[in-house]
Amino acid sequence: MGRKSDAREKILGAAHSLIELRGYSALGVAEICETAGVPKGSFYYFFESKEALALAVIDEQWALQRSDWARILESDAQPLQRMRQLCEETEAEQLAGQQSCGTVSGCMFGNLTLEMSNRTEAVRRRLQQIFDDQVAMVEAVITEAHERGEVTVSDTREAARSVAAQLEGQVLFAKLYNNASQLGALWTNCLALLGARSPHMPAAA
Amino acid sequence: MGRKSDAREKILGAAHSLIELRGYSALGVAEICETAGVPKGSFYYFFESKEALALAVIDEQWALQRSDWARILESDAQPLQRMRQLCEETEAEQLAGQQSCGTVSGCMFGNLTLEMSNRTEAVRRRLQQIFDDQVAMVEAVITEAHERGEVTVSDTREAARSVAAQLEGQVLFAKLYNNASQLGALWTNCLALLGARSPHMPAAA
Repeated sequence: MGRKSDAREKILGAAHSLIELRGYSALGVAEICETAGVPKGSFYYFFESKEALALAVIDEQWALQRSDWARILESDAQPLQRMRQLCEETEAEQLAGQQSCGTVSGCMFGNLTLEMSNRTEAVRRRLQQIFDDQVAMVEAVITEAHERGEVTVSDTREAARSVAAQLEGQVLFAKLYNNASQLGALWTNCLALLGARSPHMPAAA
Repeated sequence: MGRKSDAREKILGAAHSLIELRGYSALGVAEICETAGVPKGSFYYFFESKEALALAVIDEQWALQRSDWARILESDAQPLQRMRQLCEETEAEQLAGQQSCGTVSGCMFGNLTLEMSNRTEAVRRRLQQIFDDQVAMVEAVITEAHERGEVTVSDTREAARSVAAQLEGQVLFAKLYNNASQLGALWTNCLALLGARSPHMPAAA
């Protein structure tokens, strides 16, 4: 075992991989430490509980994904172009995961929502905050597109939530069928949900 | 413990409740038997394994839900009216669950997809068959609506998959926020994804 800070990173890394592979419930602290290559005693030095570790994994994953989303959704490109890029990068990321690990791992937040949200309130609140953030980021882009007359939706918040829900639902199917190429429908569906007619054309009135 | 057939039903019922509450991984055979009020020894008389029990719970749930879907989607009502009823009954069912148990339990198949599909191939295949069935049932209605000129989608299969994905994604959010009333958006989104303009109006060309 290296420096203490290394051990913490190793535990986080091992927990991340194991949660992606099998979810949260099936994990044990002993297995996490064995995978991380750190003594079991060190676990509780860094994390109060398995739940605290799960929250740290979730936070780390959202920090990474949030910066990706910000790069895409807050760029200077036209609003619908940004939405299209989000759909395409989501597909590309799941495809890359499928090619490197053999399985589509899906969305960690969606996975944990369906596995854990009824059981630990701390995790549920964190996941709610993450999806609130996602919806707010998407809504900002939809609002811009709306001001440009490119989409016809009347409730931008509701539309953003529907785009995020469609994304989660399609990623769920990609995971179930282990087929990321099904995500090709995301952009077409996004346009439909926003009341836009085609990638670069303002929607008909 | 009553007759053997009662014990099997009791085990199935207990497993169903516990899976809805906490998912599959967190369950143990001892707890299932205790909840069911049957001796642990009887479990393996009826089920080869915990996985075999999960498959039986899934099959029983789909048999129930499938008959609901068939009643709605294969009725004599107009096709879009049937789609609307599916959205509204989905919302009503989650709302009833929320009112009776205090929590939105979501969709068992979606929950198990995200929790288990990477781990047990038998469960993954069963869940794939169920979603294939769901998509086929929805596609039959979309095809009818398409023949009547009420929807504009070109690929009815893809459209049916998108409707099912939106349904799973929205139910995921309802579960996360423990708020079934968010499902009110299902019908509007369904119309958007099908390229229809309003509940009873044929879509503009």
